[in-house]
Amino acid sequence: MKRSLLTLLTLCFTLFFAALTTAQTDDPLPSWREGASKQAITRFVKNVSTAGGPGFVPPAQRVAVFDNDGTLWAEKPMYFQLAFTLDRIKVLATMHPEWKNKQPFKAVLEGDINTVLAGGEHALLELIMVTHAGNTTEEFSQIVEDWLATAKHPKTGRPYTDMVYQPMLELLAYLRANGFKTYIVSGGGIEFMRPWTERVYGIPPEQVIGSSIKTKFELRDGKPVLVRLPEINFIDDKAGKPVGINSHIGRRPLAAFGNSDGDLQMLQWTAAGSGERFCLYVHHTDADREWAYDRNSSIGRLDKGLDEALARGWTVVDIKRDWKRIFPFEST
Amino acid sequence: MKRSLLTLLTLCFTLFFAALTTAQTDDPLPSWREGASKQAITRFVKNVSTAGGPGFVPPAQRVAVFDNDGTLWAEKPMYFQLAFTLDRIKVLATMHPEWKNKQPFKAVLEGDINTVLAGGEHALLELIMVTHAGNTTEEFSQIVEDWLATAKHPKTGRPYTDMVYQPMLELLAYLRANGFKTYIVSGGGIEFMRPWTERVYGIPPEQVIGSSIKTKFELRDGKPVLVRLPEINFIDDKAGKPVGINSHIGRRPLAAFGNSDGDLQMLQWTAAGSGERFCLYVHHTDADREWAYDRNSSIGRLDKGLDEALARGWTVVDIKRDWKRIFPFEST
Repeated sequence: MKRSLLTLLTLCFTLFFAALTTAQTDDPLPSWREGASKQAITRFVKNVSTAGGPGFVPPAQRVAVFDNDGTLWAEKPMYFQLAFTLDRIKVLATMHPEWKNKQPFKAVLEGDINTVLAGGEHALLELIMVTHAGNTTEEFSQIVEDWLATAKHPKTGRPYTDMVYQPMLELLAYLRANGFKTYIVSGGGIEFMRPWTERVYGIPPEQVIGSSIKTKFELRDGKPVLVRLPEINFIDDKAGKPVGINSHIGRRPLAAFGNSDGDLQMLQWTAAGSGERFCLYVHHTDADREWAYDRNSSIGRLDKGLDEALARGWTVVDIKRDWKRIFPFEST
Repeated sequence: MKRSLLTLLTLCFTLFFAALTTAQTDDPLPSWREGASKQAITRFVKNVSTAGGPGFVPPAQRVAVFDNDGTLWAEKPMYFQLAFTLDRIKVLATMHPEWKNKQPFKAVLEGDINTVLAGGEHALLELIMVTHAGNTTEEFSQIVEDWLATAKHPKTGRPYTDMVYQPMLELLAYLRANGFKTYIVSGGGIEFMRPWTERVYGIPPEQVIGSSIKTKFELRDGKPVLVRLPEINFIDDKAGKPVGINSHIGRRPLAAFGNSDGDLQMLQWTAAGSGERFCLYVHHTDADREWAYDRNSSIGRLDKGLDEALARGWTVVDIKRDWKRIFPFEST
């Protein structure tokens, strides 16, 4: 028995160290090319999560915030929530014959996006209210799920939830594996994101912050519902992002990830915390594999943010150079 | 070696089973008397957390929401945040000599609470705005901490954060030990609670929902701050509670705990979910050890809520009967 016990012990140790070695050499960010961006990320994460180290931060304070459109999933040729809105107008048009002769609905039904956009913020707001309000929170959640189950991205023909960035999925998982709580802080609708963020990003509804319309508690035939009203509650964009973060989290993030000027204040707010902080901009530079745009784009403009990132030494991801793979459906 | 190994193994097993037995017989709710309330709580928790059982709910969906004033800590002789407000007026009065002749400030400075309350909602709102706005989020947090460090409850002479209910602290810990995420959903100020809820209740800032004033992002000498504005943002009371829950959590709670009519809609919203839900009212019935009040109290009125609880079979805690100990500082 003595010998068999020793053999067993030896086997256990062998397996243990084999596992340890594998874990140490396994790359948690396989879709990231070796380079400055990847190094900056791993150096930061190791620094704040190494117990006893000079940069150690307790897990409860390891909060990482991510913009969504253009940072976690694509935003071209138009914000996906805008595609949802236009599709939804077409569905609702059967109950609104008058829309055939009424702008901005007429333009939507005729597929004339330029006229829709020419209507400016007022036209967009009207389209959003008609499509996003007037139902209960549960009904709206189902409408979003139903749309995602059938809608296809116009360029790739893939479901919109396939248009997420593989390197960012790896980054989310890597941060969580190192004790971070990952949040979305998006200009997009909070109730538009919550039905699918847990499935797609591993981010639960309580860690999703976004723009919202007002809701109202009502008893309908004795059953409580929350009715979505055609009235803006909060715009979680630009200077609204730190406000939304403070309202929902009540802690300053340790790390912030964005891709546009709409994220600048969130990055500034994060960077201004004490101790080490990490700010990263995703720069869309790959016209072949994704899209290339920055200072002159109407969607996802990155201009002031890029200047500030360069001036302050924030990490700027060059998609073309830094990402081996962009979407999960691409072959490695 | 064989014998020593066997001895070691025996010792390990003994310790292991001893620990297991202790864990099983240890009462997680020692300040709760045996009875219907305690039984209802433990039966519910076992039902939803027993893997493979008929009522099992995955941990991610085990959300429990707690009112604060009168549910987790006392609310007599006045809401503690009102005591903070009045104390703060006295501090700020040195910079406002005109307050000596201006209501409602004059009444506050003269300790004439009846005149303050006679001014109604308008007077209270004026006092709140003067004391809660005009600073940054970080400054306000420090003001609250400083007040808590010195202010004493008028009846017990204890710090206000000592005036928490020991049975509820045990309940919070018991729920968390069974995979629940515990949230505060209070009519009180979100920024008034967040500085101390983690220390006192084990509830982190991101799990605190409350009423709020608007905040604004600003760069002050290049440093980003959030400035608190004298404008109501959200009232997290009555029909506002389900709205606040939906906004912050995006999931319907599995269990809700309150003590007044202001919590009724939160309990209704919780109860209306599918599968098993748990609703509990704390009924203040002990004039000797705490306070006794319900249908006719201006603070923490429990009238419609009590009727609905009795009609629907919700658990109603009778403090006098159900709680062995009320405050942590009392001897057992």
